[in-house]
Amino acid sequence: MTKLINAWPQITALDEAAMEAARERQQQLTKPRGSLGRLEQLSIQLAGITGQSEPKVDEKAVIVMAGDHGVTAEGVSAYPAEVTPQMVLNFLNGGAAINVLASQVGARVVIVDMGVNASLEPHPDLRLHKIAPGTANMARGPAMTREQAEEALQVGLAIVDELVADGVQLVGTGEMGIGNTTPSAAITAALTGASISDVVGRGTGVDDEGLSRKIGVVEKALALNQPDTADPMDVLAKVGGFEIAGLVGVILGAASKRVPVVIDGFITAAAALVAARMESASRAYMIASHRSVEIGHQVILDELALEPLFDLGLRLGEGTGAALAMHVIDGAARVLCHMATFADAGVTDKE
Amino acid sequence: MTKLINAWPQITALDEAAMEAARERQQQLTKPRGSLGRLEQLSIQLAGITGQSEPKVDEKAVIVMAGDHGVTAEGVSAYPAEVTPQMVLNFLNGGAAINVLASQVGARVVIVDMGVNASLEPHPDLRLHKIAPGTANMARGPAMTREQAEEALQVGLAIVDELVADGVQLVGTGEMGIGNTTPSAAITAALTGASISDVVGRGTGVDDEGLSRKIGVVEKALALNQPDTADPMDVLAKVGGFEIAGLVGVILGAASKRVPVVIDGFITAAAALVAARMESASRAYMIASHRSVEIGHQVILDELALEPLFDLGLRLGEGTGAALAMHVIDGAARVLCHMATFADAGVTDKE
Repeated sequence: MTKLINAWPQITALDEAAMEAARERQQQLTKPRGSLGRLEQLSIQLAGITGQSEPKVDEKAVIVMAGDHGVTAEGVSAYPAEVTPQMVLNFLNGGAAINVLASQVGARVVIVDMGVNASLEPHPDLRLHKIAPGTANMARGPAMTREQAEEALQVGLAIVDELVADGVQLVGTGEMGIGNTTPSAAITAALTGASISDVVGRGTGVDDEGLSRKIGVVEKALALNQPDTADPMDVLAKVGGFEIAGLVGVILGAASKRVPVVIDGFITAAAALVAARMESASRAYMIASHRSVEIGHQVILDELALEPLFDLGLRLGEGTGAALAMHVIDGAARVLCHMATFADAGVTDKE
Repeated sequence: MTKLINAWPQITALDEAAMEAARERQQQLTKPRGSLGRLEQLSIQLAGITGQSEPKVDEKAVIVMAGDHGVTAEGVSAYPAEVTPQMVLNFLNGGAAINVLASQVGARVVIVDMGVNASLEPHPDLRLHKIAPGTANMARGPAMTREQAEEALQVGLAIVDELVADGVQLVGTGEMGIGNTTPSAAITAALTGASISDVVGRGTGVDDEGLSRKIGVVEKALALNQPDTADPMDVLAKVGGFEIAGLVGVILGAASKRVPVVIDGFITAAAALVAARMESASRAYMIASHRSVEIGHQVILDELALEPLFDLGLRLGEGTGAALAMHVIDGAARVLCHMATFADAGVTDKE
């Protein structure tokens, strides 16, 4: 595995000519102009991302990165850390929510061990890129070294490269890692300046006492590690996680390949925030799927000026919201590509 | 065609035992309890509707009813009335937004001429149930006779009967009819008591002058026809439309067959409001897909206490929002039926 970043992703602006062609075509389709709202806007974004005036997103993949977190020793999660590897096995057996929802939308599920604290057996559907068996406890020191964070990011880049080469046109982000709303909250507070109590939520379901403890742990981790907020890699390394760092790579990689990338909930949004701070041009390649129950998510959506497609009270992660949203995104592309124009259909236009 | 209602649909309450079984199963699935939010609630509603603890909604149909409106003579629409038959032909040729979005979700599109003001050629995909070539101008007298409204409703019942017999498990509502936001606004004002200016929107896109004119026309139609607000059939007949009356039948028919019915935008919601006033038990069988831009839609959603699944700025109609929502609804059913339980997957439950 590549140890250090040797090819930083180059991300360019959206293709204005393709967007203009898509916008023009939307005006010709047999419907009142603008009457498909967000679908029209999405279709134009997809055109700008892909550089195609009639973009296709038939081939889909949800990349689910898994990692463990030393900070779980502080009692920040309602579930024990052993659930991370158990859920990875559940993914491999097709029994989790992401399997059901990805299958429904025709997306492959790519599962990556970025740093699970268990020896996972080789499996044809599992990619083994374990940086370490879980991060260090960020309440006692940095979660990762800078080299580990860079290595994890590089894994994300490499996986997207391979998937895009294999025809994938739409990438969804997903994650599994007991405890990972805690580093996500720390990243969000560090990079946005939001107060810690505004970004720490209940995760998988801690009680009031657990919530206070979690807030205290994030405060302690930030005070102890003093991440340099002007250096997103430093923030990522000190208070992040292996799966989060991998997802930063996925997002930057997708943007560099001109492939739209769907953000799921809070954890993937924390990765998106880091990616946007590293390369601001990457933001235009992101599509926010849903608004999570987890309160810090909205802070990031506001910061990135991303408007999610729906708010269904989801707080599961795994990429479930991203998988659901892929249907809407594909629908937007299909409408643009497949509807008849007023001229084609002989329909009278507005007077 | 049946001329008068000879079998009023019998609608019973949701199946509590099936809902309880679904609720119990949701607690066992490998995710934090409640973490799939609306998907979990939907799955329980589907269980209650179908009476199955593991409901399936694989077979889908969107019923698109078309009709013309005499009230277009008053200049209430941005498009000329000839667009109604032109769009029906566009549906038959597969070129409209509803064709694209229904095909994407695997739903058949059932197109019904309920009262288009043109002689439509027979076509294998078109059902001809024309009550009359457009309603009368409700600004000058009743839009329909009571017998016409009842006949249209009966058509909707019969079509659902046939589709359910043919295996359809999820019904979407759609419509096409230039001018039909005007009767929808009149129905909404009459049945909810909302002020007319709160229920009249721009439809396909009238300007400010057109909007004032439209408000005036609805005022005039209600003042002139004096519909009996305690008699929903009277309201439907005097200020409704053939496609709206047909959709009332579709909704009541689906509920009577224990089939979930997806409401699209403002016009189909007006039909849902009439259906709920005729048979209050029908409300529990409805799923609101989206929140339309058309302002009267929210008034009905509030009145029926329906929370839409998303708000994507749609205002097209045709059943497009319903078709998009079918993916989410099917996803909810699939999660309930196909996810592994904690016990199945050997995942440790919350402490």
